[in-house]
Amino acid sequence: MATVRLLSDEEAGAEALATFNDIRVKRQTDYVNNFWRALANDPATLKATWERLQVVMAPGTLDPLVKELIYIAVSAANGCDYCVHSHTAAAKAKGMTPAQHGELLAVIAMAAQTNALATALAVPIDDRFKA
Amino acid sequence: MATVRLLSDEEAGAEALATFNDIRVKRQTDYVNNFWRALANDPATLKATWERLQVVMAPGTLDPLVKELIYIAVSAANGCDYCVHSHTAAAKAKGMTPAQHGELLAVIAMAAQTNALATALAVPIDDRFKA
Amino acid sequence: MATVRLLSDEEAGAEALATFNDIRVKRQTDYVNNFWRALANDPATLKATWERLQVVMAPGTLDPLVKELIYIAVSAANGCDYCVHSHTAAAKAKGMTPAQHGELLAVIAMAAQTNALATALAVPIDDRFKA
Amino acid sequence: MATVRLLSDEEAGAEALATFNDIRVKRQTDYVNNFWRALANDPATLKATWERLQVVMAPGTLDPLVKELIYIAVSAANGCDYCVHSHTAAAKAKGMTPAQHGELLAVIAMAAQTNALATALAVPIDDRFKA
Amino acid sequence: MATVRLLSDEEAGAEALATFNDIRVKRQTDYVNNFWRALANDPATLKATWERLQVVMAPGTLDPLVKELIYIAVSAANGCDYCVHSHTAAAKAKGMTPAQHGELLAVIAMAAQTNALATALAVPIDDRFKA
Amino acid sequence: MATVRLLSDEEAGAEALATFNDIRVKRQTDYVNNFWRALANDPATLKATWERLQVVMAPGTLDPLVKELIYIAVSAANGCDYCVHSHTAAAKAKGMTPAQHGELLAVIAMAAQTNALATALAVPIDDRFKA
Repeated sequence: MATVRLLSDEEAGAEALATFNDIRVKRQTDYVNNFWRALANDPATLKATWERLQVVMAPGTLDPLVKELIYIAVSAANGCDYCVHSHTAAAKAKGMTPAQHGELLAVIAMAAQTNALATALAVPIDDRFKA
Repeated sequence: MATVRLLSDEEAGAEALATFNDIRVKRQTDYVNNFWRALANDPATLKATWERLQVVMAPGTLDPLVKELIYIAVSAANGCDYCVHSHTAAAKAKGMTPAQHGELLAVIAMAAQTNALATALAVPIDDRFKA
Repeated sequence: MATVRLLSDEEAGAEALATFNDIRVKRQTDYVNNFWRALANDPATLKATWERLQVVMAPGTLDPLVKELIYIAVSAANGCDYCVHSHTAAAKAKGMTPAQHGELLAVIAMAAQTNALATALAVPIDDRFKA
Repeated sequence: MATVRLLSDEEAGAEALATFNDIRVKRQTDYVNNFWRALANDPATLKATWERLQVVMAPGTLDPLVKELIYIAVSAANGCDYCVHSHTAAAKAKGMTPAQHGELLAVIAMAAQTNALATALAVPIDDRFKA
Repeated sequence: MATVRLLSDEEAGAEALATFNDIRVKRQTDYVNNFWRALANDPATLKATWERLQVVMAPGTLDPLVKELIYIAVSAANGCDYCVHSHTAAAKAKGMTPAQHGELLAVIAMAAQTNALATALAVPIDDRFKA
Repeated sequence: MATVRLLSDEEAGAEALATFNDIRVKRQTDYVNNFWRALANDPATLKATWERLQVVMAPGTLDPLVKELIYIAVSAANGCDYCVHSHTAAAKAKGMTPAQHGELLAVIAMAAQTNALATALAVPIDDRFKA
């Protein structure tokens, strides 16, 4: 259903295959998911995206699970069905419990609702909220 | 600039004023921000929104700061300027450090970017991501 | 603040001015709002947009006020601040009461919230909802 | 395809089942659609969402069909495929005619188009549109 | 899966069929794609949309392929799966190479990412960017 | 109005200042716009964003002006006011004529409108559009 072919290891060129293999090593799995196989049609973007993703999602002052929750929230707001699925799976793999998932969804719904209200009301920003 | 008047305490009716006062008590501040003053034109929605917000944002299996980060993420993705400002201020009040803010923004940007790629590529969902 | 100049009657060419004047006649007002003055930089799009708008917003099986409410709802969901303002003003001019405005906002907020939940949950469509 | 299991009556706990049954009574149908079965993984959000929905969608100064049309408009603008389907079905059940559906779609399309133009032109808001 | 029936030539009325036939002539193909068959439920909107599309997408100061690239970009940002597919197919038919497709996707992703950052940072517009 | 301080050269640390200076050299201007001054609060993201931007926007199989048009289209669809302004200015600097700007806007509006229709109609994807 994609707008490009999902490239198998055999179809991927050397540069894309090297990224596939780096994904395998870093994630400790043989499975390379469809997002990367679609991106492989442009090996430079595949590599840049994968490298940046590792930097951004690495443990820092926010822990990796929190980062996944944020990722799910953005993906839901942007209506990216693929990303909602892949990052919900990733969050579960990093230990997200059903209770945490439920709270995440409640916050996403609350934000969506007040976003809509604030926009439809065109509420002016309070001076004290400005940095 | 709002599409309704922002109601002062004097302009708000008894029901809206009761909610303003509950906000003051729960937040331990005399300040009632513009969002609530705009919503006060519909006292029932004002009350329902404030009550639901307290339930959703209360400490649970996710801590309140994490919930604020998620709220900012959704608000940015939805392009709600007011909400980005008010919840960034709220997150700072709950202890968000500049480093955490920076990591939050990096995740938001990463998600926005891969959301766009996955959508433009129309990547089919991997079977293993389905619940 | 626009990305183009807002053209005064004097700056608009003959074709754009003809559309300005048609707006004046049909709306029975001398005032031509900023949207049209910005669009006037491309007289053909100005004319096509104005003509289509009249067809779409004319009384039909839905009355003009209902159409304005729908317009506000879409504009809020799309985050168009200008359109939220102009169509809220138009709805008020067509008789929207504060109570109707309040109900409109409540529906917009409810929809935004369940949209977010359905997307984050990736709920499959029930067979009975398919036409 | 959902990111959670759709809970059958047997899988739902007592609290979720009580909401399912309330849906059945109020809607006068035995059928509980997938949205509620997905939400049932978090019985408190299920109950809060269902209760708020009834308040918001009840007849008021706007009639229930008009509220469904607004719901469809927001859902389309937010790109929620599930919600577009479920609320189009609901609108048909409440008497939406093909002609009304056509007019609704024409307004949605018109709004989307002028939203895009106003945003790309960054049209400043006319003073007279401010409340 | 549509919210309306996709009308076959036999089901379409005379006005819709005339538009189908005009599509066939102008595109030099017998195939009428699903978008038009869905729109055929409202023959006036079908006709208006088809006629406007031809004007907008005609060669001008931008060539038709560039217009298709822009169309894909908007469709991806708006999360319209159907439109991403149909306009990616159209762009390929107009000569879009895999390298051009890759560059298009990279720009879409870059824009999505900086859009998110600028919104979450609420960056004020530089005076020099104002027209 | 930003959610962070816009850092002057004096406030920026050594790493951020190095990026500011690289921007100055590559763009052959002393002016560093607000986006970069806001991003400077997180020097690593500032650097990564600036470096990626140069790669993506460099001349390739698409020329730089076409890339700017695509950037504007995405920014408008995402409702990013800052980005619409900055990239419209960039496109003008790269030679975008008023006529090209008009055609760009017409395509953006057309796409927004058919995106909304296809989503509200939930049009199923034609088999021939699948890669």
